[in-house]
Amino acid sequence: MLISGPPTRTIWRSDAGCGDAVEIIDQTRLPHEFVVQRLTTLADAVEAIAVMRVRGAPLIGATAAFGLALAASRDVSDSALHAAAERLIATRPTAVNLCWAVQRMLARRSLGRGRSDLRGRRGAEPCHRPAGSDVVAGWLATVDWGTALAPIFAAQQAGLDVHVWVDETRPRNQGASLTAWELKQAGIAHHVIAGGHLMQHGEADICIVGTDRTAANGDVCNKIGTYLKALAAFDNGVPFYVAAPGPSIDFTLADGGRIPIEERDATEVACIQGRDDSGRVVSVRLTPEGSPAANPAFDVTPARLVSGLITERGICAANRSALAALYPERNAT
Amino acid sequence: MLISGPPTRTIWRSDAGCGDAVEIIDQTRLPHEFVVQRLTTLADAVEAIAVMRVRGAPLIGATAAFGLALAASRDVSDSALHAAAERLIATRPTAVNLCWAVQRMLARRSLGRGRSDLRGRRGAEPCHRPAGSDVVAGWLATVDWGTALAPIFAAQQAGLDVHVWVDETRPRNQGASLTAWELKQAGIAHHVIAGGHLMQHGEADICIVGTDRTAANGDVCNKIGTYLKALAAFDNGVPFYVAAPGPSIDFTLADGGRIPIEERDATEVACIQGRDDSGRVVSVRLTPEGSPAANPAFDVTPARLVSGLITERGICAANRSALAALYPERNAT
Repeated sequence: MLISGPPTRTIWRSDAGCGDAVEIIDQTRLPHEFVVQRLTTLADAVEAIAVMRVRGAPLIGATAAFGLALAASRDVSDSALHAAAERLIATRPTAVNLCWAVQRMLARRSLGRGRSDLRGRRGAEPCHRPAGSDVVAGWLATVDWGTALAPIFAAQQAGLDVHVWVDETRPRNQGASLTAWELKQAGIAHHVIAGGHLMQHGEADICIVGTDRTAANGDVCNKIGTYLKALAAFDNGVPFYVAAPGPSIDFTLADGGRIPIEERDATEVACIQGRDDSGRVVSVRLTPEGSPAANPAFDVTPARLVSGLITERGICAANRSALAALYPERNAT
Repeated sequence: MLISGPPTRTIWRSDAGCGDAVEIIDQTRLPHEFVVQRLTTLADAVEAIAVMRVRGAPLIGATAAFGLALAASRDVSDSALHAAAERLIATRPTAVNLCWAVQRMLARRSLGRGRSDLRGRRGAEPCHRPAGSDVVAGWLATVDWGTALAPIFAAQQAGLDVHVWVDETRPRNQGASLTAWELKQAGIAHHVIAGGHLMQHGEADICIVGTDRTAANGDVCNKIGTYLKALAAFDNGVPFYVAAPGPSIDFTLADGGRIPIEERDATEVACIQGRDDSGRVVSVRLTPEGSPAANPAFDVTPARLVSGLITERGICAANRSALAALYPERNAT
């Protein structure tokens, strides 16, 4: 991605300083501040994942892989690496890429490579449509081109005139804060919205969302609120596609009901961060003192509501047999 | 309602000072500050409705009626009153109670009386169920007991153990700010949530929402996001009731597709108000500079998703014949 000029990734090996280090864009500071944070230890990587300086299943996986590499640079023993792996996997229970990346690292002890570029080209297929789309995730969720936004960027590069309705994505407002910022950087027309009635009025031609874990039957676990948008898309005949990288598909789970749903700190519902009149970025409380909040971070969209899964191997139907045919080597279990 | 002790309404005739005046709770300051604002002119009433110091269809109607009375206290000529009525009706196009109240005032030139107490007793019927509910509006939307919350208060008074999942209700967060505050004042157990996946998990027994205008066929126009909750309730077999006062039913509209949807200032999506660390109530910007937002304030829930309408005359099915039978005198048109 081009950020105010130079190509930028969401995580990269640091050239500066001595010793091993990686750098990330601190996504808790966007869209108001662009801050790069340096990670030099396993603890740094664990913290960055837990408080969501990095977020989005693929980027969490990549950060965990780097975290394991940072741990290995200090102690390469099997016991140390397994302890580090357990610590990383425990940070966020829902996104399966995290576990996948860490286990892959343990098995291969080498850094994996991103696949988002491939997904972008595949994803352009359902975008050969005239108008806008309702989008939740973007490149900040991955290493470079994002999952749900990759088809949008591909469509833009192919010369299509795209407009994106960006759902603000409560409670952390990643849509309003991050997706809008990404689209603005890319020069793609968009509007931030709250709610999904535009689909009732024929103002969305396609809906594309990401996924943190997809079960073997095509049930899709993604940021909470996704299920409601899927219902609206289905009710109005709007195609509903899920950008589902192979590592986000969990063939060990028969259906989405078995996916663990992360319960995050209720403060994320009760408070919100923004820029005040003086330009300062502050957190403000929305709820009355003493009113408790609940914060399940994900929901599960049943496969029956999903028009198709956009993978790095092509688009497939959201059902067991189509997924099994696309990933025969992973379906032995 | 009891607010920190004394019984309080949302709007009342002022005893203090000289001349005609009414006072309101300034709802833009809740839940962090309890501020009473005095309205002495038509312009005050118009401003209070437009910037949502008062909100909720019944209270908007009551405020408009008082606004007309304030106008009449200065100039009682027909032309002045009709000009005042037009100004009031233009403030908010969707809530039909506004138009109803103003026209009623013009016809009778007397203040109407609230009906929320009756709705509360009727609404207790669907609440004879064991557990919680997903609720959007409350007494702040009316003069005293609210529409959607009236059944909850009635259930509480009947000794039922009620827990309410309060949807935060974007973009103005009336749920997180106002409904949570009302429930806390009433001592009713509740949690603020963002999103509707609790219905998938059997954690909601009933869903009750308000309405700004209900068409003759039972289509329900309410705060944006209601349609998505109705879809989720329907998909999971959760009864979905609408607290629909008679004045909110518009027998002149055949279906919900004809209800005008108010497009409010995009700032309401881009910015949000809360209390900062120092206790100051501030507005903060959520979206990147230069990212536009869209803010349709309402959506329409098709009657097929509605289990029943709770009216002051009882509960009725959301269809043309049931509504016509319940309000025969209004169905002559």
